[in-house]
Amino acid sequence: MSLHHPLDDATQLNLRADGILTGTTSDAYWNMAGPFGGVTAAILLRGVLDQPERGSDPVSLTVNYCGPIDRGPFDVRVRRVRAGKSTEHWAAELVQERGTAAIALVICGRRRQVWNHQPATPPRTLPPAKLAALEPVGPMQWLRRYRFRFAEGGLRIGDRASLEKAAPAAARSVVWFEDVPARPLDYVSLAALSDAFFLRILHVRSYLVPVATVTLTTYFHADPATLRAHGEAPVLGVADAQVFSSGFFDQTAQLWSGERLLATSTQLVWYRE
Amino acid sequence: MSLHHPLDDATQLNLRADGILTGTTSDAYWNMAGPFGGVTAAILLRGVLDQPERGSDPVSLTVNYCGPIDRGPFDVRVRRVRAGKSTEHWAAELVQERGTAAIALVICGRRRQVWNHQPATPPRTLPPAKLAALEPVGPMQWLRRYRFRFAEGGLRIGDRASLEKAAPAAARSVVWFEDVPARPLDYVSLAALSDAFFLRILHVRSYLVPVATVTLTTYFHADPATLRAHGEAPVLGVADAQVFSSGFFDQTAQLWSGERLLATSTQLVWYRE
Repeated sequence: MSLHHPLDDATQLNLRADGILTGTTSDAYWNMAGPFGGVTAAILLRGVLDQPERGSDPVSLTVNYCGPIDRGPFDVRVRRVRAGKSTEHWAAELVQERGTAAIALVICGRRRQVWNHQPATPPRTLPPAKLAALEPVGPMQWLRRYRFRFAEGGLRIGDRASLEKAAPAAARSVVWFEDVPARPLDYVSLAALSDAFFLRILHVRSYLVPVATVTLTTYFHADPATLRAHGEAPVLGVADAQVFSSGFFDQTAQLWSGERLLATSTQLVWYRE
Repeated sequence: MSLHHPLDDATQLNLRADGILTGTTSDAYWNMAGPFGGVTAAILLRGVLDQPERGSDPVSLTVNYCGPIDRGPFDVRVRRVRAGKSTEHWAAELVQERGTAAIALVICGRRRQVWNHQPATPPRTLPPAKLAALEPVGPMQWLRRYRFRFAEGGLRIGDRASLEKAAPAAARSVVWFEDVPARPLDYVSLAALSDAFFLRILHVRSYLVPVATVTLTTYFHADPATLRAHGEAPVLGVADAQVFSSGFFDQTAQLWSGERLLATSTQLVWYRE
């Protein structure tokens, strides 16, 4: 893997003399008023992956987005909460002068050869080469770090005044993702991808409203060999929502490699409408 | 609400002179080798609800089950991680002599009158009065704290030797839940209910295997008025699974009050097969 991919730069952490990991926000993944949340998730995961005592690979990541992240340096404070035979529990916080901006719980677990079963099936779609890529517009740099090809439920953003009386559109979308530039898939990029779906309210309302993810949980179902075998190929994503209520909505997602479910994810998003 | 309901007793916390909350495990909600995980989730949520500085109601709860919980006393250490205009972020740990046994992240958020929309719809089922209640068997006391009435995908546990070559059964089930004795619904009981679904592998395999939830995330979509209006009526639950892979499977759930989605939930479960 190239050490100079922008995602590796954005998630790079250095060990300071006092034992705390430190990093710096990346302009390459900047969103509107702060970093793309997927990179924040990837940074906190990487804080755990970088621990020398870690003995197994990630199975679960929950990130709570607590406050704004300012452009510039941050600390990542990592703690092993408890370790057992099958699982290790870690906590990680991204801290700046204003306090904790994001807090994560990470579980690493020993995968074993056991009975496997996958009730979920991927959607049937056209291959990515047959679908047009989204043309990134606007100032959000993170949109330029992915190639999005919608196979179902594409994003159309229009004028609020003419759309707010319209019936809600479908929350579900199916999209092919690729890192730009290409990068072999690993847990760090999978964590970022699990937050790379557009927030469902944009699909449902088709105009811009204030939104912010408050918490994201991703379960990693793929072992390292499956991720290596996937390589740099596009990942197929499916996202949906169940309910928008009183200023918070949920969002669910799947990430697929061919017939295999790599990760499933859920998030809760604050919105104003 | 009765102060003597076993769920209120099981989640009761007392403030010790050093400012730490303390509680004691409840035999009334005992599972196989420790407390029912739903009560552990409810205890950690209650640790946050009991904080005098709290200014809003829960919207999200993630609990990571880190290690065994011994019968007897425990501490609950609660910390406000960050508070903003719309959300408050809390962390809570259940600690015993052997260390942290469970760690939770809780988000409380200000609900507002905004545009609402619910793409999800409840399953059509028979009313609970027309369905037989599960007869609790075995030593697990927590099973006696709920009345389960399966409307779809009931639980049948048989002999492994005769079943392990059988095709996997459906992971999905639809079940009516009631607290026993009856208790008005609130966030504490909703948190416990979100973990009261049988683990999906028992439905899919139809025999007992070693299982343990490692993490549970529940989003609360209902405001306090909706919970009060629901009262002591049965809650309809829907649960499913997407993938069982290498010793970990996911489980998703919905909790319904009539046409309204009260909560959605996901968990990751360790299994050996």
